[in-house]
Amino acid sequence: MTVEMNADSPAVVVDMGELAPYASHHRLTDAAATARGVVVHWDDGSCAEFHAVWLRDHCACAECRHPQTHERTVSLLDLPEPMPRPDVRVTHSGALHLQWPATGGHAAHESLFDPGWLRQRAEPSASAKPSDARAQAWDATFAQRVPSVAFSAFMDTDAGLRAWLAALERFGLALLEQGPTEAGGVVRVAERVGWPRETNFGRHFDVVSKPNPNNAAYTAIALEPHIDLPNWQRPPDFQLLYCLENAAEGGASVFTDGFAVAEALRAEDPEGFEVLATRPVDFRFQDEGADIACRAPVIGLDEHGGLTEIRFNNWIRDTLRLPARDVEPFYRAYRRFWALLRDPRFAIRFTLAPGQMVAFDNLRVLHGRDAFDPNTGRRHLQGTYLDRDLIRSRLRVLERVVA
Amino acid sequence: MTVEMNADSPAVVVDMGELAPYASHHRLTDAAATARGVVVHWDDGSCAEFHAVWLRDHCACAECRHPQTHERTVSLLDLPEPMPRPDVRVTHSGALHLQWPATGGHAAHESLFDPGWLRQRAEPSASAKPSDARAQAWDATFAQRVPSVAFSAFMDTDAGLRAWLAALERFGLALLEQGPTEAGGVVRVAERVGWPRETNFGRHFDVVSKPNPNNAAYTAIALEPHIDLPNWQRPPDFQLLYCLENAAEGGASVFTDGFAVAEALRAEDPEGFEVLATRPVDFRFQDEGADIACRAPVIGLDEHGGLTEIRFNNWIRDTLRLPARDVEPFYRAYRRFWALLRDPRFAIRFTLAPGQMVAFDNLRVLHGRDAFDPNTGRRHLQGTYLDRDLIRSRLRVLERVVA
Repeated sequence: MTVEMNADSPAVVVDMGELAPYASHHRLTDAAATARGVVVHWDDGSCAEFHAVWLRDHCACAECRHPQTHERTVSLLDLPEPMPRPDVRVTHSGALHLQWPATGGHAAHESLFDPGWLRQRAEPSASAKPSDARAQAWDATFAQRVPSVAFSAFMDTDAGLRAWLAALERFGLALLEQGPTEAGGVVRVAERVGWPRETNFGRHFDVVSKPNPNNAAYTAIALEPHIDLPNWQRPPDFQLLYCLENAAEGGASVFTDGFAVAEALRAEDPEGFEVLATRPVDFRFQDEGADIACRAPVIGLDEHGGLTEIRFNNWIRDTLRLPARDVEPFYRAYRRFWALLRDPRFAIRFTLAPGQMVAFDNLRVLHGRDAFDPNTGRRHLQGTYLDRDLIRSRLRVLERVVA
Repeated sequence: MTVEMNADSPAVVVDMGELAPYASHHRLTDAAATARGVVVHWDDGSCAEFHAVWLRDHCACAECRHPQTHERTVSLLDLPEPMPRPDVRVTHSGALHLQWPATGGHAAHESLFDPGWLRQRAEPSASAKPSDARAQAWDATFAQRVPSVAFSAFMDTDAGLRAWLAALERFGLALLEQGPTEAGGVVRVAERVGWPRETNFGRHFDVVSKPNPNNAAYTAIALEPHIDLPNWQRPPDFQLLYCLENAAEGGASVFTDGFAVAEALRAEDPEGFEVLATRPVDFRFQDEGADIACRAPVIGLDEHGGLTEIRFNNWIRDTLRLPARDVEPFYRAYRRFWALLRDPRFAIRFTLAPGQMVAFDNLRVLHGRDAFDPNTGRRHLQGTYLDRDLIRSRLRVLERVVA
């Protein structure tokens, strides 16, 4: 192989069909074929090995990636197997150049790899989350530091939007302040991020006391901590509640970090935690035109035992269908979890003002409210839902600029 | 306890706050308190025992269930623990009556249970699926028996709607025929079931050859078998593709039951299957305004090893980030799975006619198409997505009538 280095050349950027940043000041100094692929060395002494089939699969030339859609158009099934050994060299500007020989009816091919792009991939991360998305649990003391952004900064600046989304991902709850008090603000907020997730409550919904309610939110009664729509296989990830009027007596909003409470249960009652994490519960919403039902545990875990979601909503919990031996342990654990969800150690409580909006992770942060007296004044919130996919997408796009 | 039976009375129906049918000709003949609850006997000799706490939790009186929303308003946390032993009797009409004594500050309470409702719950089912939702795998021979319903029967009759939805749930693919050929038909179909699931392609989308495509579907090239939007944590469950024009040469649609192919892989190459079911793959769609990414295995399994979803889409497969030892086994398994997905043993192929619509389970049935020549005529499909929750809800509501 040949090394052709020019120490004065600027940092190279080979088009890798990526919009996320990968430019780096580290160029390659050396590269060589190995038994299973190619080993490369960067100018700071670090090195990494890549498999031949991986390199060929990730070729970003105009034949292998669609130049407009950035999609992979090279097909593994149309490539030789095993992959032939490439000729390897480092270019003048410190990129990796591979020359794949023709073999068994397969044409020769050239690939060029950006050194910064390779370097990012030499340190594989296990997470598809944007860097701002790490969850941080909270308890009642969170009341003093609830993240909040001005409506105008959120709507008009990338920095405001990013700060708010990052806080929402991290804490599962964030406020917007001083927004307009005409209807429709909540949809404008959702559309600043992506678009509303439509449900059986519509593309957005009005939380007011109604004469013929089809769910408890449309009454004036107190609401126990709950998540919305646990009866959906795919409940909405985030909820936005925008306050237009709040003149009635009572009606304070209450929020609890369900992940913090679930961890408290795991610590004090591991058996109860296990019951709630493994025994499925049926949830069901029925009215004239809908019958939406789902069966899932109250506490969702990933394969490493990490919390993924909380499904707690006592109103639309359907018939409990468990083997007889599980019934009493279930009710014991469920009561204990519920008592912790109500515990003032974990809850924050505040009264939304007109023009204020709260957003929260519907599968993590439980929401409730105190009863209010509809005869003392009007209380009107507008709500909608938003997918996590869209929040993370917006964060990733914002990170392109500032990374 | 007292038995008060009247053999001539009609089948009792106690309002249990359910819209799903539970009326039954079987009345109770006997009931008695036990150490943990109540044992009941029906008039055909069958019997079942229910826990006291379960019975109290499922009381459907107007205090315990909201009379309008049917939601559970009784709160376990406000009930005595342990639950006191109730007085038990069978009513004249064969229902179960429980009298809960006052205890430790908790008021007395009466509960009445319908005998048919209890009987349904004495045979707990593990499934929240409607009865029509069992999946049935298929191969190339399915081409001769693709389920199909006339557009007018689907739009105008409950029987047509139900037959089509049931086929779609069972086979993961169904056709509508002889629909109108003006734009918007696909949204009318979605709205007959529920409402469209909005994505980064909009509330619906047009599949035509475009000058500046942001994905391969908007070109004229052949499309390998794939699912849509595997880069979403929550991809849409079903896709609808409605043909408005199809005069171009080529462009036949190809479908493959990914569950059948995954089972074939499991049978012939268990290690390859295991690799695809456990090693996560990154998927990513990037354009100017979006960067939607997700990390998940190609084959999704439930805790019993049953198939839950297939995520295969080679265009938007992102960088493969696996430990070095997994890279070659992954590519070997992925190639084998892909070859099976292309195998004519499994695929069905047909050309959509104007006014014809195909719907398919996007997480089970892979779709592709042959290349077409846009110079020989216009090809225009309209598409949208639909959530499984809505399809099952509609089936459950239809089952209320015919059960």
